[in-house]
Amino acid sequence: MFQELAYAKVFQEYLEARNLPHSPSNLYDPIRYIMSLSGKRIRPLLVLMGAELFREDAVTSALPASVAIEYFHNFSLIHDDIMDKAPLRRGRPTVHQQWDDSVAILSGDALLVKAYEELAKCPPDKIPALLQIFNKTALEVCEGQQYDMDFEKRWEVSETEYIDMIRLKTSVLLGGALQMGAIIADADREAQSLIYEFGVNLGIAFQLQDDILDVYGDPETFGKQVGGDILANKKTILYIKLHELILGDDRRKLEHLLADDGEIKPQKVEKMKALYAKYDIQALAIYQKEKFTTIAYDKLKAIRLEEERKQSLFSLADALMNRVQ
Amino acid sequence: MFQELAYAKVFQEYLEARNLPHSPSNLYDPIRYIMSLSGKRIRPLLVLMGAELFREDAVTSALPASVAIEYFHNFSLIHDDIMDKAPLRRGRPTVHQQWDDSVAILSGDALLVKAYEELAKCPPDKIPALLQIFNKTALEVCEGQQYDMDFEKRWEVSETEYIDMIRLKTSVLLGGALQMGAIIADADREAQSLIYEFGVNLGIAFQLQDDILDVYGDPETFGKQVGGDILANKKTILYIKLHELILGDDRRKLEHLLADDGEIKPQKVEKMKALYAKYDIQALAIYQKEKFTTIAYDKLKAIRLEEERKQSLFSLADALMNRVQ
Repeated sequence: MFQELAYAKVFQEYLEARNLPHSPSNLYDPIRYIMSLSGKRIRPLLVLMGAELFREDAVTSALPASVAIEYFHNFSLIHDDIMDKAPLRRGRPTVHQQWDDSVAILSGDALLVKAYEELAKCPPDKIPALLQIFNKTALEVCEGQQYDMDFEKRWEVSETEYIDMIRLKTSVLLGGALQMGAIIADADREAQSLIYEFGVNLGIAFQLQDDILDVYGDPETFGKQVGGDILANKKTILYIKLHELILGDDRRKLEHLLADDGEIKPQKVEKMKALYAKYDIQALAIYQKEKFTTIAYDKLKAIRLEEERKQSLFSLADALMNRVQ
Repeated sequence: MFQELAYAKVFQEYLEARNLPHSPSNLYDPIRYIMSLSGKRIRPLLVLMGAELFREDAVTSALPASVAIEYFHNFSLIHDDIMDKAPLRRGRPTVHQQWDDSVAILSGDALLVKAYEELAKCPPDKIPALLQIFNKTALEVCEGQQYDMDFEKRWEVSETEYIDMIRLKTSVLLGGALQMGAIIADADREAQSLIYEFGVNLGIAFQLQDDILDVYGDPETFGKQVGGDILANKKTILYIKLHELILGDDRRKLEHLLADDGEIKPQKVEKMKALYAKYDIQALAIYQKEKFTTIAYDKLKAIRLEEERKQSLFSLADALMNRVQ
């Protein structure tokens, strides 16, 4: 679906025209490699769509900022994969797996600097404002990743803490991308703030949906192993809701399941799903997802522009949230 | 000596007023830790001195840029120490040693972003130019670190390659620091380029001197273990010059020494020094050091300003190069 979006091609062409040096190859080959794994390129498209929303002719001048966001996203993937000891990314070996940790650390660093290099190509009068939102977002993404790692070592994480972690780790980048587009298109402060909040809340809703699909998704279309989060004892909105509500015998059952070291995989998923069903966890999670989706849509509606200008963003949101219009 | 410099205190006070958040503590405590190990703070002073050179009242507005440079330097120390598996930094455990690799990667990333956050506080009309030189420098430092790691795995490295590596890894940051100060003080392009070249060439000379002192320095004042580079088979200007010239039996002797796995430490240093002496390596290295020092001084001289304005930079250079005026 994203290939059909108006600006996906413009972005791809601009990206491919970025010439990376060839030496030192251990610095630049990993960057070429991670960028070639592509992914859906949603974040850079949000920059362009944020610009288009406020001024159609601002899209071209938003291209460097869109590449900055995509570079930043890929920098964070390289470094997160080292920290998470992930062997695969988009079905291919991760950078630290293909090369080694040192190469992954340093090429990630270089890619972060390359992101700022693209920022420096934005319209000069916009650079201070862009730099500010980019820095704030980047720092928050680091904070989110740290909370995520901290939470892995904890038995109890509150819903508020969890939502705040996913807000920082994944959602502020969507909001920041849209706001950067808006800045380039001369949107006023209020509109900037609304489009930012649209992105952040949509991002939270999307992450909650990912948690839900991991358990209840269609194995044909989900793309990842259904039940993967349960097998990995991952703290998701479902896990956290259950942990909040569960009592007595069921709590001991849960503890037993969590202590399982992978001997009884299929049963583990089924048993967790039985507990989720007993405490009506799926409905609670869907309620949360819908809550953030509604906030997101309301923020977009509140922007003082003709509704038809917002259509492509509503469509993107619908597509991301699997909504049929 | 650096405490005596006019702006060391101003810098320290500004730095201490930067408030870092306390949560997540695993992200910000390592930053506080590395910054507290302090070091000589030469790089930020270069920013301030670069500003002062062209306009005395520009020093205050150069403070955020000076912190940006110091943050960047410390970011690179955190990440380099992971890659080099270094246990100690300035006599204290390195960040990855005190916490772990993941914490060191992520807090390093955050510190790099913090550097850009300081850049964003510079006079807005100067930000595009500052961002450009900062990005160029940062990327070159990454390239230098990568070449350094690549060279460790190679038997033969040419003098040109080596000088280029130290230029990228350590010297461009000195030049970049000075140029950023000059930009803030409205220096023209030609002056910016001269002060940059002064810093870069001084940096190369300083690194060559470090190589020389590692073998011929006074153990009382050198601060590191004399002969440390020899014991570690490190490629230094001395090693590279020797490798270029050595022939026949002596080459076999050298190969034998390099293959030594640390059984005969004191003899190894003495035997290498004997080879260095036979091929007059110390003199050749001093010649190179002097060459770059002279270039540096000539660049500073060529700046069209009254000589007395340059006095503090000449004094700093003299001090760094152990020259008595």
